[in-house]
Parts: sequence; structure tokens; C-alpha cells
Amino acid sequence: MIPLNLMNGSNKADFVNTGAWTKKAIAEAKKYGQVNVLASSEDTTYTYIPKLDKSKFTPDADYFYMASNNTIYGTRFGELPDTGDVPIVADMSSDILSEVVDVSKYGVIFAGAQKNMGPAGVTIVIIREDLIGNAMDITPTMLNYKTHADKGSMFNTPPTYSIYIAGLVFEWIKNQGGIKAIQVRNEEKASLLYNYLDSSKMFEGTVVKENRSLMNIPFKLPTDELNAKFIAEAGKRDFVNLKGHRSVGGMRTSIYNAMPVEGVKKLVEFMKEFEAEHAE
Amino acid sequence: MIPLNLMNGSNKADFVNTGAWTKKAIAEAKKYGQVNVLASSEDTTYTYIPKLDKSKFTPDADYFYMASNNTIYGTRFGELPDTGDVPIVADMSSDILSEVVDVSKYGVIFAGAQKNMGPAGVTIVIIREDLIGNAMDITPTMLNYKTHADKGSMFNTPPTYSIYIAGLVFEWIKNQGGIKAIQVRNEEKASLLYNYLDSSKMFEGTVVKENRSLMNIPFKLPTDELNAKFIAEAGKRDFVNLKGHRSVGGMRTSIYNAMPVEGVKKLVEFMKEFEAEHAE
Repeated sequence: MIPLNLMNGSNKADFVNTGAWTKKAIAEAKKYGQVNVLASSEDTTYTYIPKLDKSKFTPDADYFYMASNNTIYGTRFGELPDTGDVPIVADMSSDILSEVVDVSKYGVIFAGAQKNMGPAGVTIVIIREDLIGNAMDITPTMLNYKTHADKGSMFNTPPTYSIYIAGLVFEWIKNQGGIKAIQVRNEEKASLLYNYLDSSKMFEGTVVKENRSLMNIPFKLPTDELNAKFIAEAGKRDFVNLKGHRSVGGMRTSIYNAMPVEGVKKLVEFMKEFEAEHAE
Repeated sequence: MIPLNLMNGSNKADFVNTGAWTKKAIAEAKKYGQVNVLASSEDTTYTYIPKLDKSKFTPDADYFYMASNNTIYGTRFGELPDTGDVPIVADMSSDILSEVVDVSKYGVIFAGAQKNMGPAGVTIVIIREDLIGNAMDITPTMLNYKTHADKGSMFNTPPTYSIYIAGLVFEWIKNQGGIKAIQVRNEEKASLLYNYLDSSKMFEGTVVKENRSLMNIPFKLPTDELNAKFIAEAGKRDFVNLKGHRSVGGMRTSIYNAMPVEGVKKLVEFMKEFEAEHAE
């Protein structure tokens, strides 16, 4: 949808490849224009966010594309590059509403609801008004941002139930003290885990420190046998969905907004127990 | 999505224009190929399904496109034309699961869930296997039927809640005796209303008899004042959403699978009362 709507000036776009989803976005954009991959961390299965060399940026790019958080690998993009007049397009599917964001720095923010907003089946788009209305002629009407902007997102029958639940989640966030308060809690939750991982002699985080995600924290034990044993024993204590993505292995804990601090504390306690039991 | 996936042979397609949604489909297809509108009932605001002249069909069309039911106008397509080797594509959004359909006669059936299946936000596609995999090069990955066929409809995170509810609705239909039993009930419900409309001296159905829908039944009183009065008084008795679409005016009752026979009986009783009160 992004290339069809935005790749309409120089027909060029810059990308940072930080995971499976940016890789898919790159492949898709190549169908419609000239793609420049500024940097990639595919070499280490995306354990870090690559540094960007400013001289490699395309000065007349139609947009710069990035993912703010990478669910599978547990990385967080962090500080935005200075792209000048080139609008920044960010896939925030896995960290929207998790921390304060200066929306004015972006051309397009989009995010599937299913992590921090509500049920799967609705996507939120925040787009700068001047970026609407320049879609390529081949763009299907349903994929043209102008269609949805003009019709108040009701060109077709919208996913009403998902939108309703997202509204309840927004109210809940407000009642929690807003995104600022949510961010403080998310930082507390992530610190609990990272501090333990850094002090542990057995567990190890898989992401470089400066790019650690607040939402998804992958970690490993020294052997695949121990990983499997940990996941099995955790399951008995009702810690579920801890298996890491098959491309990374090990474990991954996803601590989205809905996960209370208490849940993370209990997991860390269990990890300590496990380490004590299995220490030689 | 249909033209991008199917308009890949002769680049031609035949259409019957029976309402706002077929009109939109025609406009969309024109972006990608040569469109032949076999017939249209736009002249009377779509109060009938036009007869098709077999000599006008495009022999090498990539597909023949129709809507099986038109929500706004209350028409039902009825018997399919003999299109030979040309696959029939049917938008069944407003009548799927309402009556028995011979799926083998169609190339593609698609339907939004929001009428007879479940919450808005999921669309069901039934496609002949040989029609998958020939999409145009410009087709976005998400709009290519092959993407979803290859990945078991899980290329992206699917709308899980909507799919779950649709599953419950399918079970409910089975428990009712299946589509056959549902069809009998729908025919009973529609007959109650049509029989009254045909006998009434005040109310009048807006659709020609042979094309009447089982799902949506538009009707009118002699004046706009009476229409408005009827809608207001009906509202006081908890008969809601009876106002007709602005393009048709008058009233429209939608009696999807979820509406019990009892509800239709009560509406007809109220219509009779209204007629008695307002007869001169």
C-alpha cells in the first residue's frame, strides 16, 4: 500500500532491513519502483539495528521506510535519522501506544491493532495530509489512502467490533494515565527482565544492549536441551507462548501493554529458580 | 482484487450492472482491462434484474461478473446464465448462506461476513483452483489470491475474533438443519411480507415480482409524509433500521438469517394496523 501511494515522485525509496517484515516491504516496493536498502542486519538474524551512513541516503527519495520495533528479533529502532525533506514511513505494528512518539516527525505511521490496540483485523494509519492523493494509476481503490480519507474510513463496511474494542483500549490507556504512564510501566517491566538477563550466568539476551525492545525480549540458555526444558517447565506454571520464533530459537517473552508488572516479576522469579536448579 | 487476479487472458470481462456495488466493480475493472456491460437496470434505480442477450456475451471473456443479491434495491439475481467456459464471479455478500447454492457453477464466490456470517472485517472467498496463480504483475502481494491459498489464509495475522464468531454461526446453521432448513425459513419470512405487500392497498413493494430478494425487501407508502410517519411509529414499537437507502427512499426491511419468523410476523401485523388507521 505504501509504494502504490507514495512512490510517485522520483519512484525511489530508502529502506532499513531489520527483520522479516521490512524484508517483505522491500520485496513489495521493488515491484513498483527503485529500492535502496541503506543497511541490513540480516547477517546476524537481525540482532541489532544497523547504523546508517548518511551519504547513502537517496536525496530525492519518495520516502524512508523503517520498522520501529521487530517482534521476532526483539529490537527497537530508537532515534530517527535526519532524512531532511524525505518523509519517514514507520511500521509501528508491534510497539504503537507503548511509548511516547512525536507523530509530527513521521510522514506515515501504520500499525495492525493486534499487539497493543485490540483484536486482529484493523490497521491504524496516521498520514500527513500532503501525502494523500498522489497514488499511482494502477492502485486499487481499496488500497488508495485517499479513498479512506475522503470517506472517513467508511468506504466499505469497517470492522466495527475491532474498532469498538480498540476504543475501549484507548479509554483504558487514558485511565492508566496515558501513554506516558504506560511507557514508565513498560520500561519497568523490560528492566526487570534485562537486568536479570545481564546478571544471569545461564540466561542470555540475544539483542545488543542499545537496540533492545521494550515489547519483545528474546533470550537463550546454553543448550537447545535446556531451552526445551525451560519452555516445558514454564508451561506447567502457566507461562505460555515463551518459545522463540523458529528463525531465532530459544525463548521470547512478549510484554505488550496488557502484561502487568506482576507477570514479569513472576517470570523472573521462575527464571531464577530454574537457574539455581540447573547450575552445576 | 478480481480484475487483478482474473483479467489475465483476453483482458476482457462481462458485467451485469444491478446496483451500487456492481457499478463500483465495473469502474474498478475498467482500470485493468476491457469491460463489457451486458445489461443494466440503473434506468429504474435497479428495481429489476435485466434480461441478458446471449449474443452480447464476450466469448473469450476472462470472467462474467454479477451480484447475487442487491441489498439496497432488494433484488435477487436468480437463475445463472449459460456462460460456457467463461467463469462466473459472484458477489454474494448479502445473501451467502441464505439459500442452497451449487458452488460448482461458479469460478469465484466472495462475500463479506457482515450480513449472514459474522462481524464485519472478514471476507470469505471460494475460488476454483485453476483460477489461482495468474495474477497480473502489478498485483500487491496481499491482493493476490495465491498468497492466501499458499499460506492457508495466514500470510498476515488473520482477523481471529471475526473468524471465531463466523465458526459459531456455521455451527448454529448446522444445528438449525443446515442451509436447506434456513432457506425454507427465509422463504417463509419473505412470503409473509410479499403476500401482505401484494394484498395491501397502501403499501407497495418496489421490485418486480420475479426478481424479489429473500433478504432485503424495500416498500413504499403513497406519500413521503406517510413513509416518515410509518418509520417514526415503527421506531416506537422497536422496529428499527426500516428507513430505505437514500437512493431508493421509502422503507426497507432486511431479514437476514438471524431474523426469526416471529419478527417478520410482528412487522406485518404492525403494517396492517398502520394501514387500517390511515385508510380513508
